[in-house]
Amino acid sequence: MTRRADLTPARLPRGFADRGAAELKAVREMADAIRETYELWGFEGLETPAFEYTDALGKFLPDQDRPNAGVFSLQDDDEQWMSLRYDLTAPLARFVAENFQRLPKPYRTYRFGPVFRNEKPGPGRFRQFLQFDADIVGAPNVTADAEMCMMMADTLEAVGVKRGDYVIKVNNRKILDGVMEAIGLGGDENAGRRLTVLRAIDKFDRLGADGVRALLGAGRKDESGDFTKGAGLDEDAAGRVLAILGAKAPTNRETASRLSGEFASTPTGAEGAAELSQMAELIEAADYADRVSVDPSVVRGLEYYTGPVFEAELTFEIADEDGRPIQFGSVGGGGRYDGLVGRFMAENVPATGFSIGMSRLLAALAALKKDEAKAPGPVVVLVLDRDRIGDSMALASRLRAAGIAAECYLGGSGMKAQMKYADRRNAPCVVIQGSDEREKGEVTLKDLVEGAKAAQAIADRAEWTESRPAQVTVPEADLVPQVQAILARHA
Amino acid sequence: MTRRADLTPARLPRGFADRGAAELKAVREMADAIRETYELWGFEGLETPAFEYTDALGKFLPDQDRPNAGVFSLQDDDEQWMSLRYDLTAPLARFVAENFQRLPKPYRTYRFGPVFRNEKPGPGRFRQFLQFDADIVGAPNVTADAEMCMMMADTLEAVGVKRGDYVIKVNNRKILDGVMEAIGLGGDENAGRRLTVLRAIDKFDRLGADGVRALLGAGRKDESGDFTKGAGLDEDAAGRVLAILGAKAPTNRETASRLSGEFASTPTGAEGAAELSQMAELIEAADYADRVSVDPSVVRGLEYYTGPVFEAELTFEIADEDGRPIQFGSVGGGGRYDGLVGRFMAENVPATGFSIGMSRLLAALAALKKDEAKAPGPVVVLVLDRDRIGDSMALASRLRAAGIAAECYLGGSGMKAQMKYADRRNAPCVVIQGSDEREKGEVTLKDLVEGAKAAQAIADRAEWTESRPAQVTVPEADLVPQVQAILARHA
Repeated sequence: MTRRADLTPARLPRGFADRGAAELKAVREMADAIRETYELWGFEGLETPAFEYTDALGKFLPDQDRPNAGVFSLQDDDEQWMSLRYDLTAPLARFVAENFQRLPKPYRTYRFGPVFRNEKPGPGRFRQFLQFDADIVGAPNVTADAEMCMMMADTLEAVGVKRGDYVIKVNNRKILDGVMEAIGLGGDENAGRRLTVLRAIDKFDRLGADGVRALLGAGRKDESGDFTKGAGLDEDAAGRVLAILGAKAPTNRETASRLSGEFASTPTGAEGAAELSQMAELIEAADYADRVSVDPSVVRGLEYYTGPVFEAELTFEIADEDGRPIQFGSVGGGGRYDGLVGRFMAENVPATGFSIGMSRLLAALAALKKDEAKAPGPVVVLVLDRDRIGDSMALASRLRAAGIAAECYLGGSGMKAQMKYADRRNAPCVVIQGSDEREKGEVTLKDLVEGAKAAQAIADRAEWTESRPAQVTVPEADLVPQVQAILARHA
Repeated sequence: MTRRADLTPARLPRGFADRGAAELKAVREMADAIRETYELWGFEGLETPAFEYTDALGKFLPDQDRPNAGVFSLQDDDEQWMSLRYDLTAPLARFVAENFQRLPKPYRTYRFGPVFRNEKPGPGRFRQFLQFDADIVGAPNVTADAEMCMMMADTLEAVGVKRGDYVIKVNNRKILDGVMEAIGLGGDENAGRRLTVLRAIDKFDRLGADGVRALLGAGRKDESGDFTKGAGLDEDAAGRVLAILGAKAPTNRETASRLSGEFASTPTGAEGAAELSQMAELIEAADYADRVSVDPSVVRGLEYYTGPVFEAELTFEIADEDGRPIQFGSVGGGGRYDGLVGRFMAENVPATGFSIGMSRLLAALAALKKDEAKAPGPVVVLVLDRDRIGDSMALASRLRAAGIAAECYLGGSGMKAQMKYADRRNAPCVVIQGSDEREKGEVTLKDLVEGAKAAQAIADRAEWTESRPAQVTVPEADLVPQVQAILARHA
């Protein structure tokens, strides 16, 4: 039937990935821990569909100059453009505006699911990935932002990051906005340059002060020779922006007070510093000052933030295979975005929230736990006599009825291939019943974990065959307790 | 800032839905139960991305004549067409072909996630919905199909459908194929007419024998006047096809034996009948004959099935609000599709599997459990003095540390609105601490469940205000045990 000349190539689309059982389990466990933390803080679930009308994404688009770049878009049969969601914030803003009257206010909500970016794929850069967001809509005060920072800390600990291995950094956009006003970058006409300044500062961790200084000024040529145009600030103005990054002091209150003193020359800047002071107080009162740190270098690269911004950063290092340290850096962040729901409705709706990037957090945790044993597979009941496969199925059934994951081998191959199959499935043991055993009402159990150890210890192959390590023949009636005993041995 | 003239309309794209907290919880619990059942049977998880190259979907497309109809497709920047997955079977076939060497054989896998159909939306018909599939790839024998049927039965019971409230119907495509060969519909040139016959039979439940007879013949005009072209069979041929539907006997073995006798005039038909007999035996031996029923009326509307086909049907009826019975019918199905992986590779790879439609199953179960109480929300700590909000946050923190979902009210409104908020969140109780209570080191707890009951009983408003039912003032140190006592009272 198969026309070989006609074969379709089997390949994943570029930038997408398949996920296997172990990764799915890790994702599920992490998602459960995050959800439980959010629910403990009084947040409730919401799920929006993969598509939104493209016009609803508006301001959220990664590149405002080219409204369709960065997102996957298609035209519906009524000619309306739809796009796959780029993040979980834009759909929330649309949902809140659409259901405003019936929602409790403040509305505390979490959302989990895939987001899509139509970007050039690269190593470790996927075009579909998972985010887990939490937001409070309708709370105008920075108390909500302080809660967000504390809940982020609780969340990281819930998924297994130890205290001291992470920091939640918090800053306020208004401080930078104030400095930008002071150096003449205020007003709608300078929106583009302000964004360039934001993105320059956002690269501080990666490029250092000199790199940022170049991006604030004329521009920067990277190692590959590519030139990025700068914000065009003169040296003095660039220096004033850069000075913010150096304002970090040993304690949150000191940092906040330094910012109030040096960078609050405009009403906007003063407001930002006051909000940071208030957050520092709440964080200290709640005993989170060792986890949440006021840090003026955090700006977040998105234009829509209007006040506090925060970022969750892993601080531990792990050595890679060549002994070089790997830093994981940011695994999530967010901030206040008071203007976003206002795109859809006249009423002003303040909002704050954060997003956790599941993949990066998973990668970091996997690196921490790399020695963890592979999860055990099901018990495999071998089939020696294909005409009596019903008997093998019944044995598997009895194990399942006792809550033990078990399957009957359903392929067409012989004993050797069946044992190899059980190995690949990581089966803790196999169940064997030949005609001799069936007549005697017995089954043979082979402990594959023990067997593998014994095989390593026994050098002589003849001795191995003779001694049949880790193999036991028992009455069929004892099948369940005997298998349970083997599982308990390796639990 | 908001330019009112510029407001973007907030609306969901047509045919898509938002899902709230209660529905998400129900989906999660159902998915957990299904996953646990599949894992008990030795299946392991796999997740493929939302996109596949359009050519990889090929035979899976709903309408072969118009390859892009029915799916959401877009062109990647390298000009290749990509489509959102239409089901979870096509991506599995691509995955297996792409990773064939490294997979255990047979490969037992499950997949869960949204699928997308670019169809005209209607009431209850969405363009994004959830499926939960299980498949065995590389098992050529109907033993695997029998397992599929039994696992479907276990799955329905695991999610809460009682034995007797459902039936797994099983048939074999080869029986119908045999009859079609016998009446001259064999060969590639008749593929289209065979599909028309399949789809006609698939409508038996809905249209009855006369409707199907019309669709097998010249065609059928429905109530709205729309005409569906038929398969063009003459009366005798149509009768022979229809006779299959009437071959159901009281027991599986009798049905199988009747099919062997009357409808096995071709080698294909005889093979199908023999396979059904073998399945009937395995099902009886495994003691599933009360749940899995051989039923010749099941064909499944998809062209790619090559042998056994099965369908999970709910048999209970529920009265709607007007007392009319609602039948839920099919909640899943599947079959053997031996040719599918072969589209990608020369090697022949047999496969069988089934898919559960989560939404329909959820709707049915929700109808069964409609009296279930709404899940309790978080405890809400009220804020009487906004300057001391840190104290309220600390009370919420103490509850969370004890594992109790709790939040501090973060809106800007007064007491009355705060109580209303707690009601909307379905809070079991609120915590109140005014300045008096703070000075005395006390907190007041108000049991909202008890309060609501008392309010119904007390007619006189003055008496209500005086008696303050379900309200207690306790030392702050007793906050956690006192709240636990209230929660325990309503658990």
